Amino acid sequence: MYTAIGYAAQSSTAPLAPMTFQRRGLRPDDVAIDILYCGVCHSDIHQARNEWGIAVYPLMPGHEIVGRVTAVGEKAGKYQVGDLVGVGCMVDSCRHCEACRQDLEQYCLEGPTQTYASPDRIDGSNTLGGYSSSIVVSEHFVLRIPQGMDLPSAAPILCAGITTYSPLKHHGVGPGHKVGVLGMGGLGHMGIKFAKALGAEVTLFTRSPAKAEEARRQGADHVIVSTDEAQMREAAGRFDFLLDTIPVQHDLNPYLETLKFDGVHILVGLIEPVDPPVHAANLVLKRRVLAGSLIGGIAETQEVLDFCAEHGISCDIEMLDIRHINEAFERMIKGDVKYRFVIDMATLKA
Amino acid sequence: MYTAIGYAAQSSTAPLAPMTFQRRGLRPDDVAIDILYCGVCHSDIHQARNEWGIAVYPLMPGHEIVGRVTAVGEKAGKYQVGDLVGVGCMVDSCRHCEACRQDLEQYCLEGPTQTYASPDRIDGSNTLGGYSSSIVVSEHFVLRIPQGMDLPSAAPILCAGITTYSPLKHHGVGPGHKVGVLGMGGLGHMGIKFAKALGAEVTLFTRSPAKAEEARRQGADHVIVSTDEAQMREAAGRFDFLLDTIPVQHDLNPYLETLKFDGVHILVGLIEPVDPPVHAANLVLKRRVLAGSLIGGIAETQEVLDFCAEHGISCDIEMLDIRHINEAFERMIKGDVKYRFVIDMATLKA
Ligand SMILES: [Zn+2]
Ligand SMILES: [Zn+2]
Ligand SMILES: [Zn+2]
Ligand SMILES: [Zn+2]
Repeated sequence: MYTAIGYAAQSSTAPLAPMTFQRRGLRPDDVAIDILYCGVCHSDIHQARNEWGIAVYPLMPGHEIVGRVTAVGEKAGKYQVGDLVGVGCMVDSCRHCEACRQDLEQYCLEGPTQTYASPDRIDGSNTLGGYSSSIVVSEHFVLRIPQGMDLPSAAPILCAGITTYSPLKHHGVGPGHKVGVLGMGGLGHMGIKFAKALGAEVTLFTRSPAKAEEARRQGADHVIVSTDEAQMREAAGRFDFLLDTIPVQHDLNPYLETLKFDGVHILVGLIEPVDPPVHAANLVLKRRVLAGSLIGGIAETQEVLDFCAEHGISCDIEMLDIRHINEAFERMIKGDVKYRFVIDMATLKA
Repeated sequence: MYTAIGYAAQSSTAPLAPMTFQRRGLRPDDVAIDILYCGVCHSDIHQARNEWGIAVYPLMPGHEIVGRVTAVGEKAGKYQVGDLVGVGCMVDSCRHCEACRQDLEQYCLEGPTQTYASPDRIDGSNTLGGYSSSIVVSEHFVLRIPQGMDLPSAAPILCAGITTYSPLKHHGVGPGHKVGVLGMGGLGHMGIKFAKALGAEVTLFTRSPAKAEEARRQGADHVIVSTDEAQMREAAGRFDFLLDTIPVQHDLNPYLETLKFDGVHILVGLIEPVDPPVHAANLVLKRRVLAGSLIGGIAETQEVLDFCAEHGISCDIEMLDIRHINEAFERMIKGDVKYRFVIDMATLKA
């Protein structure tokens, strides 16, 4: 067992507060990790406040974890003590179903074990996430951080990064394609970078004309103000793909109309339900596709880390003292962060 | 010019009634066709009654046409006088856009010319469909009826057939796949036959337990009663593809839940809008796809005719005397036809 300290919510209405707890002793295939940095994801807020109705308390968020290996189990051979590693949204899965066999653990038929607020598959204990000093994870679910990567800005690649990279890859985005990215938050700004690095011509759709310059700095070739009907009309039938990162309910129809025939509108947000409803004509008459996507598998998460290292891509972050985590949640709700808070875990000991 | 007779609506509230009119003289690439049979599609009712708001009167429906070539234009070399041919939903397109160059004339960027109620691209006249004695069509939009095919039951392949065949082919349905067909009308019963002939395991979803035996006769391996919650629950996560032919608004969510991860729900009906709305979770959490599809291109329409000839597939029909067309419309609205009315054009002269 490892004594650890972290920040957790004790109920849906409680703020996050320090908590001392035990991490399990090493199983044969486990890796113990001292956490250096952890990104702060919107899911962390939803879960801490039980907004999805599936929270388990104490709830210790954090699934964008970067740290250093401090010990390895007797049958764990993938990492050595001292290695820089990451942990994302999952820490286990059934490992034998059709999805797991295809390296799509996120779609595990028995459900993957989430990094936090999920029952451990062996002892049933409630998983506790990365807002903490250490974590113990089966090596299959541990990623290698490529050499030379800036560690804090690598952390959000483990959720925000893979969430946007995976669907672009899955649907074959590449040179010659026109890609629209809807929204420029933590996910959207990563989507712009990935679509650009994959060779596509990238357009940001935003409600804020003021974001145009910043979007171009992120790599966007064009900006369309989505509230400007003339601009939207002019964009009709022009895009091959839309990566929709807007985290709140919105009307998909004006965006669908900007897709060519065979165009694909990718949803990554749980905007429940899709209301205003989609017009069937926007799909049927042009053979368009509305597709969902959820994070990515472990192999692909390693792929995106390597892709980021190769292309010099990282997440734009603001470093956070963990003692300010509750204020950070409030700022995130207002959209007041460019583009991801990353907790410096050294502040846990301050 | 050819003098022709047909049945047309003179307004959205008028019944179809006989009308004598002129077909154009042959353009160089035209084929003149004596119509033998014409299928009756639900679109014909929607258009005759201007339920889509785009009707042009007189409105002469009919886009499932089978007939015999009676004359060919001076530069038309594809067919000879006496050939048995078909005409489907389109009679022209721009022929140079990205869609047309890919043999996807139905998605022509300038809009295909519909077989009826559409302006002719050359003289602007209102196209008149197949509820008539003859038609003149550019040879590119004329299909060859394979030798030995039963002519009346071939007619609906030109709309009901291609509409269901095209998305199954486009999405790669084949052996090893579990395909659900939603609804067993004109489209659905063709969908069952195609999915089966493509090698898939086929399940009909229907509200009527009474349809089980008939569904098996059409080729379905299984039947799920969609109003039976236990059956629907048991089907969760089992299907690779759903071909949704239900022509009225319905809740897609219970069906989406029967798809595996990466499963595809294909919409071919203009159920406007998709309400109750789709739950994003049903797409995102399993990387499922909601896809539209509209008829098929000319090359693929020839392909489905040839596929039907090869596999002994045809549409189940009830022959209709054109003088009973208005009663037939009423019966179709009540779902009282197995599965398609086909007009015997000989009755036009009776
Ligand atoms: Zn996340
Ligand atoms: Zn699994
Ligand atoms: Zn039709
Ligand atoms: Zn065209």
